[in-house]
Order: sequence, then structure tokens, then C-alpha cells
Amino acid sequence: MKVVRTITELRSELKDLKSERGVDGKIGLVPTMGFLHQGHASLMRKAKDLSQIVVISIFVNPIQFGPGEDFETYPRNEAQDLELAEKEGVDLVFIPTVEEMYPVPTKTIIHVSAVTERLCGASRPGHFDGVTTVVSKLFNIVQPDMAFFGMKDAQQVAVLQQMVNDLNINVDIVPCPIIREQDGLALSSRNVYLSAEDRAQALVLSRSLQAAKQALESGEARTAQEVRDVLVSIINQSSHAVIDYTEVLSFPTLEPYEDHEDLSERNHATLIALAVKFGKTRLIDNVLIESKEECSHV
Amino acid sequence: MKVVRTITELRSELKDLKSERGVDGKIGLVPTMGFLHQGHASLMRKAKDLSQIVVISIFVNPIQFGPGEDFETYPRNEAQDLELAEKEGVDLVFIPTVEEMYPVPTKTIIHVSAVTERLCGASRPGHFDGVTTVVSKLFNIVQPDMAFFGMKDAQQVAVLQQMVNDLNINVDIVPCPIIREQDGLALSSRNVYLSAEDRAQALVLSRSLQAAKQALESGEARTAQEVRDVLVSIINQSSHAVIDYTEVLSFPTLEPYEDHEDLSERNHATLIALAVKFGKTRLIDNVLIESKEECSHV
Repeated sequence: MKVVRTITELRSELKDLKSERGVDGKIGLVPTMGFLHQGHASLMRKAKDLSQIVVISIFVNPIQFGPGEDFETYPRNEAQDLELAEKEGVDLVFIPTVEEMYPVPTKTIIHVSAVTERLCGASRPGHFDGVTTVVSKLFNIVQPDMAFFGMKDAQQVAVLQQMVNDLNINVDIVPCPIIREQDGLALSSRNVYLSAEDRAQALVLSRSLQAAKQALESGEARTAQEVRDVLVSIINQSSHAVIDYTEVLSFPTLEPYEDHEDLSERNHATLIALAVKFGKTRLIDNVLIESKEECSHV
Repeated sequence: MKVVRTITELRSELKDLKSERGVDGKIGLVPTMGFLHQGHASLMRKAKDLSQIVVISIFVNPIQFGPGEDFETYPRNEAQDLELAEKEGVDLVFIPTVEEMYPVPTKTIIHVSAVTERLCGASRPGHFDGVTTVVSKLFNIVQPDMAFFGMKDAQQVAVLQQMVNDLNINVDIVPCPIIREQDGLALSSRNVYLSAEDRAQALVLSRSLQAAKQALESGEARTAQEVRDVLVSIINQSSHAVIDYTEVLSFPTLEPYEDHEDLSERNHATLIALAVKFGKTRLIDNVLIESKEECSHV
């Protein structure tokens, strides 16, 4: 495994790797902000399965953080990250500085409309412009065949898929399942911010999503409003939880259902998603329910 | 020369050409809106000089035209275009339909700030978002090493160079000199719109730019205001000319000089640019004056 910190080095190492492993060897990219956990490890394993050269990037991207968000305090641990990447058989780790990625402030922004307007896009204005712009930069730098993203940020997957479709970017976006602790908490680099008490209370997130899914599947809840009621009633069992949003939408178009629309009629996949704050720590989680059509093919 | 109309065909033909001519063969792309003239021919010749595979695209891009602009009436002549491309030794001509490029309306837009805000960017809101978005799509489809653009649209060159720098796009933007008729009129597909009388009067554009350049170089004009006065006095010799803008700016940053700033102090290249309407036909032209520093290296 090689660690490179400049775009020039990265391009040169990749050229060597390609000529070593055959020009038709696929490049798989796992873009990350570091502080890697088993969720990231699952992306690297998927990348290793599907491609011949595995590149991960570790970059806490300033332009996707809003004012007052946690850019400065976002957890970082390079030594631990490199150990994990090495263990997963990564070929190349790209760790640029902010100056390497933005030698001058960018005047160019990629904006995706519609799919960015709800969920985290609504709570974090400008966030997805930062994500699409940096991912596009990483794609241009690495020129991967495939890129791997966790479904924990389902909206990010939908937004990037939209960008790739619209701009004819020749990269397959590979969404990978959410990885959870044994007790159900979705893995996140931000979990480290949680106090022991908040960590325990945060279990309401995955519990509420499971309950909502069951209620929808059993027919106990039939509308978006009823699904949200299930979520809210369970989240509110935590005295520390402050709800940012609970939403029920089509996936990947991210169009909200009407409050009283009968979801059993739906022929899209349905995303039940939430963002909840515990003190300053904002956690997101979701569950995706396949459409009846997709289910009937199984 | 092959003509392809779909992205799939284009990618497949390019793959064949690459394996024929060696994987290290450079691809040169000349993006055009068709109705090709000797200005385009000069771009193709430059592409042929510098690359092993020459691709031209012919696509009148709807999203770079504003409401009330000439998208519908923009001149088209495919047979004549193919004849010219063949004569210039082009390998591949990509002529997609609007449906091929935009199977659904794009939700993704690339926006470059600052350099888009003056000149044509000010007169044609949204125009450069359309240009950067479609050029980015063409870059992703063709994956060229170099792309060739005429300096007649100097702002387009500056905007695309900014996009390429900001997004780490691995394509060299090669600006090529303006090609003129013997009497000085800059070649443009839109010249075909001009009546005989307007065609004659339109010579004030190149004459005013030459006069402004000489006045600046001789010291007769020293400030942006004095340069603009020279332009305006000559353009106004035409009774049909309606000035959209006359501007004096640094290049490629496109920052305007102060009205009374002494341009002899400048250490940037200076762009003198204008847009003038004759009836419904809007023509642009410009002259670039090297900085003293650049001149002293010659």
C-alpha cells in the first residue's frame, strides 16, 4: 500500500499500477473523510471484490461544511486509518491537504437541484454543492471505473447518481449497505462525539426505523404521516433526542409522499430517513424499503 | 472519417481507434455548434497537429441559449459540415440529438462565478452555465487529452480554463487565434444572418478594435475609458450598430480596469472586447494585448 499526498504523485502511482496490472484493470475508489470504521471497511472490501486497483481518499472537505458545523473538530486519526486500509488490502491512499485540493478558493461549483432540496439538503444549505464538487474533483483526479458509497447517507448516493447521469460521468456509483453496531446504531465517524448516555439513547434511531418498516409492511401504518408518527413516538422515548427531520420519500428521486397518500400503492422504493441531534451531535439513519415491483422479482 | 450519433457508438469507435493507434495516442476534441467555417477549420488543423485522434462534436446546445435567443434559428448545415471535417482529416464526428444529450432535463449544472459575471455573462444570464455543463458532458463522453476553442469567444476560453483548473479536469484547453475575413470581419456562424448592408457596416467592429489597440500601444489612449472612447467613436460610424458592451479587462481573470487607471502600468494581458447588435444579430469580437512582461520575453 502506498500513501500519496499530491495529485501528481497519485496520477503517477496509478499509471504504474495500471501498467503493472493491465490497462483493462478496473479502478475502484472509496472517497472518505477518514476516521475510518467498519462501514468504510465494508466499502473497501466491496471495492476489492469488484476492481483490480483499490484507491481510498481521506479528505475532510471544508466546502461541504456550513458555518458553525464541525469542520474544525471533525475527528481525524491518520495512523489508525492507514492501519485499517492496509489490513483491507487497499493499493493507494490519497491524503491531500486542503491546499492541494483548493490551491485557490474554487470559483466552480456543481449544483444538483431537486434531489438536494429535502432531508440534509434542507438542513445544511450548500452541503451537497460541496459534496458534488469535491467528488467530481476526486473522479477527475483518480478516474475510477467505480466509486463506493455507504447507504447511510442515502441522499448523497441519490445526488451523486443524479450528477453522474446528468454529466455522463463514466463512473459506476456502487451503493453499499449500512453497517451497524450489534445493538443497531449505524456506524458513523461522528458517533465518537456521543457521551455514554447519548450513545445509549441514540438506539432510538435504528429502533424507530425498524418499527416504522414493520408497521408499513404489516399494514399497521399505511401513509407517510402514520410512518412518521411511529418514528417520532419512538425517538421521543429519548429525553435527549432533538429531531431535525423524519421523512418518507421515493428513492432515488427523493420526492416526498403526500401526508395521507396510501403507500401500499407505491411503485418506487421508499426511503424512511431521519436526522436527530444529541447535544451538538447530529446523527442520520435510514431504511430503504423496496417497491412491490422489485420485491415481486425476487 | 466516421459519423456517430450516440454516446455508446462514440465510446466504442474511440476504443477501436485507440487500440489501432496506440493507447498513448492523444485525443483532441473540437466542440462546435456546427455551421462550420474556416475558424473551425483552424481548430481542427491545430487538433490534427497536436493529437493522434481528432474528434469534433456538432451540437447546438439548447441550455446555453436564453429565452428569446436564436436556438431555433441557429444556422445548421450537416452535409456541408461533414464535407469540411472530412477535408480537414477529422477521425470522428459526434452529432448527438438533444434527446441523446439530455434524455431528461438536467438537474445538474456547473456554475463558474466571477469570470462569468461581465461581458457576455452579463448580457446572457445562464449562458455560461449551459456552456460549462455541456462542455463537461462532452469531456466525460470523449475523454480527450486536449480541447480546442477559438479566441473569438475569449470569455468562454477563460471560463472553461477556470472550470478545468477548479475541477482538476485532465484536459488541456488550447486557445486558438481569431480567424477573419480579408476585410477584417471575425468569422462567425451568425454572420450568415447579416444583410448585405449590415455585413458592410459590421466592419466597424474589427476596425474599432485595431484602432483601440494602436491607440493603446502608441500611448494616445492610456486608460480604459480612453480605449472605450476610441471603440465607441468608430462603432458609431455605423448607423445600424447598437452597442451591447465595450469592455477593457485583464485576461484571463476578466477583472475590469478602473475607468481612469493607467493601463501602461498593467502587468496582465489586456482584453478589449465588444458585443454589438445589427438588427437581431449580435456579434462579438475582441483583441488581446499581451502584458509588457510577456512582450519583454519575446
